[in-house]
Amino acid sequence: MSKLIFYYKRHNICAKLLSMSKKLTTRAEDYSKWYNELVVKADLAENSGVRGCMVIKPYGYAIWEKMQAELDRMFKETGHQNAYFPIFIPKSYFSKEASHVDGFAKECAVVTHYRLKNDENGNVVVDENAKLEEELIVRPTSETIIWDTYRKWIESYRDLPILVNQWANVVRWEMRTRLFLRTAEFLWQEGHTAHATKQEAIAESKQMQEVYASFAENFMAMPVIKGAKSDSERFAGALETYTIEALMQDGKALQAGTSHFLGQNFAKAFDVKFTTKEGKREHVWATSWGVSTRLMGALVMTHSDDKGLVLPPKLAPIQVVIVPIHRNDEQLETITEKLKDLIAQLKSKGISVKYDDRTTHKPGWKFAEYELKGVPLRIAIGMRDLENGTLEIARRDLLEKNIISFDDTVSYVGKTLVEIQDNLFKRALDYRNSHITEVNSFEEFKEVLEAKGGFISAHWDGTEKTEEEIKKLTKATIRCIPNDVKNEDGKCVLTGSKSSRRVLFAKAY
Amino acid sequence: MSKLIFYYKRHNICAKLLSMSKKLTTRAEDYSKWYNELVVKADLAENSGVRGCMVIKPYGYAIWEKMQAELDRMFKETGHQNAYFPIFIPKSYFSKEASHVDGFAKECAVVTHYRLKNDENGNVVVDENAKLEEELIVRPTSETIIWDTYRKWIESYRDLPILVNQWANVVRWEMRTRLFLRTAEFLWQEGHTAHATKQEAIAESKQMQEVYASFAENFMAMPVIKGAKSDSERFAGALETYTIEALMQDGKALQAGTSHFLGQNFAKAFDVKFTTKEGKREHVWATSWGVSTRLMGALVMTHSDDKGLVLPPKLAPIQVVIVPIHRNDEQLETITEKLKDLIAQLKSKGISVKYDDRTTHKPGWKFAEYELKGVPLRIAIGMRDLENGTLEIARRDLLEKNIISFDDTVSYVGKTLVEIQDNLFKRALDYRNSHITEVNSFEEFKEVLEAKGGFISAHWDGTEKTEEEIKKLTKATIRCIPNDVKNEDGKCVLTGSKSSRRVLFAKAY
Repeated sequence: MSKLIFYYKRHNICAKLLSMSKKLTTRAEDYSKWYNELVVKADLAENSGVRGCMVIKPYGYAIWEKMQAELDRMFKETGHQNAYFPIFIPKSYFSKEASHVDGFAKECAVVTHYRLKNDENGNVVVDENAKLEEELIVRPTSETIIWDTYRKWIESYRDLPILVNQWANVVRWEMRTRLFLRTAEFLWQEGHTAHATKQEAIAESKQMQEVYASFAENFMAMPVIKGAKSDSERFAGALETYTIEALMQDGKALQAGTSHFLGQNFAKAFDVKFTTKEGKREHVWATSWGVSTRLMGALVMTHSDDKGLVLPPKLAPIQVVIVPIHRNDEQLETITEKLKDLIAQLKSKGISVKYDDRTTHKPGWKFAEYELKGVPLRIAIGMRDLENGTLEIARRDLLEKNIISFDDTVSYVGKTLVEIQDNLFKRALDYRNSHITEVNSFEEFKEVLEAKGGFISAHWDGTEKTEEEIKKLTKATIRCIPNDVKNEDGKCVLTGSKSSRRVLFAKAY
Repeated sequence: MSKLIFYYKRHNICAKLLSMSKKLTTRAEDYSKWYNELVVKADLAENSGVRGCMVIKPYGYAIWEKMQAELDRMFKETGHQNAYFPIFIPKSYFSKEASHVDGFAKECAVVTHYRLKNDENGNVVVDENAKLEEELIVRPTSETIIWDTYRKWIESYRDLPILVNQWANVVRWEMRTRLFLRTAEFLWQEGHTAHATKQEAIAESKQMQEVYASFAENFMAMPVIKGAKSDSERFAGALETYTIEALMQDGKALQAGTSHFLGQNFAKAFDVKFTTKEGKREHVWATSWGVSTRLMGALVMTHSDDKGLVLPPKLAPIQVVIVPIHRNDEQLETITEKLKDLIAQLKSKGISVKYDDRTTHKPGWKFAEYELKGVPLRIAIGMRDLENGTLEIARRDLLEKNIISFDDTVSYVGKTLVEIQDNLFKRALDYRNSHITEVNSFEEFKEVLEAKGGFISAHWDGTEKTEEEIKKLTKATIRCIPNDVKNEDGKCVLTGSKSSRRVLFAKAY
């Protein structure tokens, strides 16, 4: 083996190539390991030298940018504007909203000093003379600093509603981290709105749940269940948390986005009142809502397979890759010449095309690379194709190849990208729907959870105690009370007490 | 006065309205105060509860988003991709590149703990048991963490160049802060590229200087001088710093963007080598380049006047505002009906239009508001206009009104927006050009600097000592050695020593 490595080194075959040639762990072998490997090998993200903080690599970031662009468009279409608030929050702000500080994790990055200096040995050390009077917290979420600001922005009903969103990084000092799913620093958007009435604030928080669901289903091709959180799973400081819940291929649920109706809690904590049309002074009503780079993890785990990523065309940075098959430079030139017009036509349709004419890598290597990276369509074209007026198109979702007439390519590509998007959604929906199981006893509950996983639809007596007990016994939590839940008399799956509706349980990320 | 405030309160006339009715300080009165007031009153930004950190308000952020969109497009057109690196940098990383740690300001936010807790009195305090082994610095710039990452990305010449940019927040613990110009936290982009050859890296850093200059002139309508920094003004760790320098209306210069050729300094510090085509191992060549929310300050100070902001149409969130003039609801309806098609036509041309039909504010109030906010064109239309088939269009740059035939509006608006963009650039260019003064003695130097300001073109003997002395005596620094400098024998303005070219001095932000 050492001889082989020596050979590789001498011939400039880099470690990256070596590691790529090693196959991915399969999902059946070890789902968790498969995910961790895939995220790194497909160039989405990697761990950094800072514990728990990730580097989002260009390919991964390009997907995130596409997500951002669509979400941002949807936020603006629903009347929101972007703004930016400080990354630091004075420690005292956290104490102001009692349920927020109690319920929110206290694992935060705390800034205590504001200067470094060289010590007598020339080492860089913290200057103990530069200690802050009040510590600053790197924001884990921004309700407190934003409501402290809104106090200055709001005088009367004329200043309402405030419909603001922020794209930002936040930090939560997680102990066990996983790329995208749970990292100390992550990127997200957080909407924070202020309203004159309770009804308007509730309507806003429900509207944003719909926006998130629409984004998840139409762009990520990821079906979600819309629902409300139970008391214990609610955001700290919220009166109601609306959620979208997705199902991963291993049968575990993933909370993909939440929208909170905050009542007047933050307005009261930060003394934000407005003068009504009738001249009365009242506290303002609030919502907040967010999705994060966690969606990247959800995207990977919804569609990808043992060969690598599978990306829905609407979020794929490269929708079509073209690989020329040639024996020499002359052939490459001929093929390139023939492709020029085709590439221009595809681009003019708004399709993102990469023509990979690198001679440093063989076609077989490229095929594996783009499969790993989940490019929806791969075109291969060689000299014989040129003679026949054809080319070969491979679909990433079905791992199927077709020979297509060269002249039909543009329309075939356009049509097939739509088909892939639809197929991915349908496949994920079928999987999800076949993994919602109604159970009527706790034995059945445990059996289904272990053998099959997925969502378990069960009666629950509505108490936190029962919820806690079920979690302790099975690791399953209430994912949501679905928006479209039907009234149905039944008995709690654990206690046998009366229940009027089923809720969805699952093990979750 | 107290009676008046009482009256206002009773009638719901908010403090915002009261403060707006107060005129801006004029530039002649106090330029610095004018700037500070304008940034707040025009809803660009405001100070937060966190010392030195600003809140960028929706209107200000909308301008920043437009800047970002254009710059991002230009970066991508020149082959760059975005990525994201951790906000925290382990303290030890800073020590690795000696000139970087020595030259770079040590005023940084230092994270020392990772948990809060409730003390016996229920107060939130830092948990002393959760002390980090190694302190983390909130990034003031990311060369160190990025080059620590590039070591893992680069094996051979095939992996080069790496052309990566990041949009991020950074923190420098500035003692005296001013909105946009100097804040503890600011937003920026930082490009970090890795190359196989010195020539390629130099070409990259020069290219980005050109990109910045083109953005400043074509979008911000802000003329800039391209040049190189002197040794003492260079970025810590760079071999060459290319800059674009703009001139504000008070005769002070503002460094608007810099691009650094970093040589192999960071590659050596972080042990980043690559295998050449010939099989040799060599250190990688680097550049970095950035512009920040400081550009917002530059934009304000280049064009705005005593009535408020003046925005170049290409960066204005609202390009045209339409204010209906009416006596009752019926008139408003008639006017609104008439405008529908016009608004649709303007939008279809990609022009951003706001129709302000709020009945809570009078037209006069609206006129002042949009003047303050720098909207390039304001259309007013009343019942008489409807009869005459006309409307009134006011240009913000010239404060000029014209009566236009209703049917000509779309073409007039399109043409005039282009004219305004050109006019703003020309006006700023004339001002800038008339404020570059050649001087040949130190007396003259001081006289011009005090009486007229602007750039002073003077011979300099090339030593840091002289540069330092001039700065001490006049507060002027060498802004740059212009790219297009001519060889010209002369004598240093301070020491009389031999000099072969003039450089540009100025007082600067």
